[in-house]
Amino acid sequence: ALIAILAGDGIGPEVTAEARRVLEALDLGLTFEEAKVGGAAYEVAGHPLPPETLAVAERADALLFGAVGDPRFDGLERAHRPEQAILGLRKAFGLFANLRPARLFEGLEDASSLRPDIARRIDMVIVRELTGDVYFGAKGRGTTEAGLREGHDLMRYDEEEVARIARVGFETAMRRRRRLLSVDKANVLETSQLWRDVVIEVAKEYPDVALDHMYVDNCAMQLVRDPGQFDVILTGNLFGDILSDQASMCAGSIGMLPSAALGATGKGLYEPIHGSAPDIAGQDKANPCAAILSAAMMLRHSLGQAEAADRIDAAVAGAIRDGARTGDLGGSLSTRAMADAILDRL
Amino acid sequence: ALIAILAGDGIGPEVTAEARRVLEALDLGLTFEEAKVGGAAYEVAGHPLPPETLAVAERADALLFGAVGDPRFDGLERAHRPEQAILGLRKAFGLFANLRPARLFEGLEDASSLRPDIARRIDMVIVRELTGDVYFGAKGRGTTEAGLREGHDLMRYDEEEVARIARVGFETAMRRRRRLLSVDKANVLETSQLWRDVVIEVAKEYPDVALDHMYVDNCAMQLVRDPGQFDVILTGNLFGDILSDQASMCAGSIGMLPSAALGATGKGLYEPIHGSAPDIAGQDKANPCAAILSAAMMLRHSLGQAEAADRIDAAVAGAIRDGARTGDLGGSLSTRAMADAILDRL
Ligand SMILES: CC(C)[C@H](C(=O)O)[C@@H](O)C(=O)O
Ligand SMILES: CC(C)[C@H](C(=O)O)[C@@H](O)C(=O)O
Repeated sequence: ALIAILAGDGIGPEVTAEARRVLEALDLGLTFEEAKVGGAAYEVAGHPLPPETLAVAERADALLFGAVGDPRFDGLERAHRPEQAILGLRKAFGLFANLRPARLFEGLEDASSLRPDIARRIDMVIVRELTGDVYFGAKGRGTTEAGLREGHDLMRYDEEEVARIARVGFETAMRRRRRLLSVDKANVLETSQLWRDVVIEVAKEYPDVALDHMYVDNCAMQLVRDPGQFDVILTGNLFGDILSDQASMCAGSIGMLPSAALGATGKGLYEPIHGSAPDIAGQDKANPCAAILSAAMMLRHSLGQAEAADRIDAAVAGAIRDGARTGDLGGSLSTRAMADAILDRL
Repeated sequence: ALIAILAGDGIGPEVTAEARRVLEALDLGLTFEEAKVGGAAYEVAGHPLPPETLAVAERADALLFGAVGDPRFDGLERAHRPEQAILGLRKAFGLFANLRPARLFEGLEDASSLRPDIARRIDMVIVRELTGDVYFGAKGRGTTEAGLREGHDLMRYDEEEVARIARVGFETAMRRRRRLLSVDKANVLETSQLWRDVVIEVAKEYPDVALDHMYVDNCAMQLVRDPGQFDVILTGNLFGDILSDQASMCAGSIGMLPSAALGATGKGLYEPIHGSAPDIAGQDKANPCAAILSAAMMLRHSLGQAEAADRIDAAVAGAIRDGARTGDLGGSLSTRAMADAILDRL
């Protein structure tokens, strides 16, 4: 299989290099092709997601993404800013399902700002819709009748968009504790009311899964109060953006958490949830675990290699359990040394 | 001055009764008029915000609100559900500015799920816009060209809506540490980009306030990681709904936190941030502190009685410091006994 390596900006290149090293060590006959994305692409090609990169992504079976974001380009108008690369890739390949596991690794109980007894129980997956909602609805700037400037973005979903992500939610729940929590704001939003109606309809296809609903504001509270209560959370693009970041932080080390963006075909995009961290870029300090665990998700979801994925997961958990720590975890291992600790356990 | 008491559902009547008792004890010459709202109003008048209640609210100088929400009415279509009362009151009286303080009271360090050293530092105000955004934009259900059901809600702001709430944010910052953080999602939303532009323009009127910006997903993370970093957060209606609930829970005891909804005139609506808690309604168990502190906010913001407000704040803080605790705080005081502990210290 062909893997596109879209390393991006900041620490992206460092951590994806280690993820690639781990994949190579497993000898799965993968081939790799690198392409620029984000600020790194804007710099050479004048666009954060240039056609050359799209072409590489097009022919690849899966995309291993690093991180995008570079303060040098913060002043650009939105269409040219590094983050547009990730929105563009999601849309170009119909990657509508974002899987974001959040769990606390044994040994990292003290990394969370939550009390250890509360943090220890965190083990959830957020299933976030990724190509609809207010992110991709009609948007623009205008002038009101009174001559005032205004800005608008249409929040919307149709029943097919909701049903297909709901199925991903129910399937995920089937592989776990058979409980699905759908999060919306149905007391205020019509979009949410449609969302809720359709999720309830799809639930009939999954009689073994217990479905519940929660308002997004309450969910943000409960994620602080007792995150251990959650197993699989299903939600829309905007609420998922907020809640999944919150949940990751509850689990303590955002340097540990991977994510997947999946579509209707097997192709997926895999990326650490952390950003480009320009402050430590190029210093061999970044934690490569999230990128390495993203590679494991890729093996599992795009390449049918669940066993190899399990081996990587176990090696990361083992290295952490045995005390391997980069700076973000309170240790002093370099990016490369941390990856070595994982490779040793493969 | 005339105070409308809109006690509402569940524990609303119990806690507002104690808040009224505290106000009466201060002998400020206030008069009170009660009116039904929420499920309690629907039951007798067929609407959660009937004309009689609006009329009382209309002639009052300030509204002391309890809580709305009653599981018996969850099945009603949205327009008749209890929560519509609060949306209707905000809109009817142009209450565009929601002030939501979140702080940890001395003695309640253990009530938060955050580590005590992190929780102890929480002391912020969230300034949330309350009559615009996707809450009040054009909304509906429809059918796509392909015959699919869809639901939509328009997110939008115009420059005047943003400027007036921004001024409330800057004024709040002037009374505190002169730092304002505006939270948006300007990397994705045009509404947010307008928001950011206008906030930056209004900042010129407040050269003494340092203005920063943060994306909402990052803010949700930072509220978990280190909530002590925040002082005044300014944000829109939807993001404010989520972040303010999250911040309240970080501070531990949502039974302790009041809120204010203010308009262009002096009239305001004051309510505890907790809900109607039907499970403990009518049992003399609810914590009246949030309602009592809401009454203090009313004295300060609608009635020009800052000194009386300070006295209430100090009495509540004193009672808590001395160990007075209702069930939600791990104690066994009744609603009335807790209020007595506060009255003793007035
Ligand atoms: C960079 C940004 C556009 C993106 C999003 O909001 O989806 C990011 O926050 C994420 O969650 O992947
Ligand atoms: C009840 C609901 C409509 C309301 C809101 O979303 O504004 C509530 O959550 C709040 O924050 O006051």
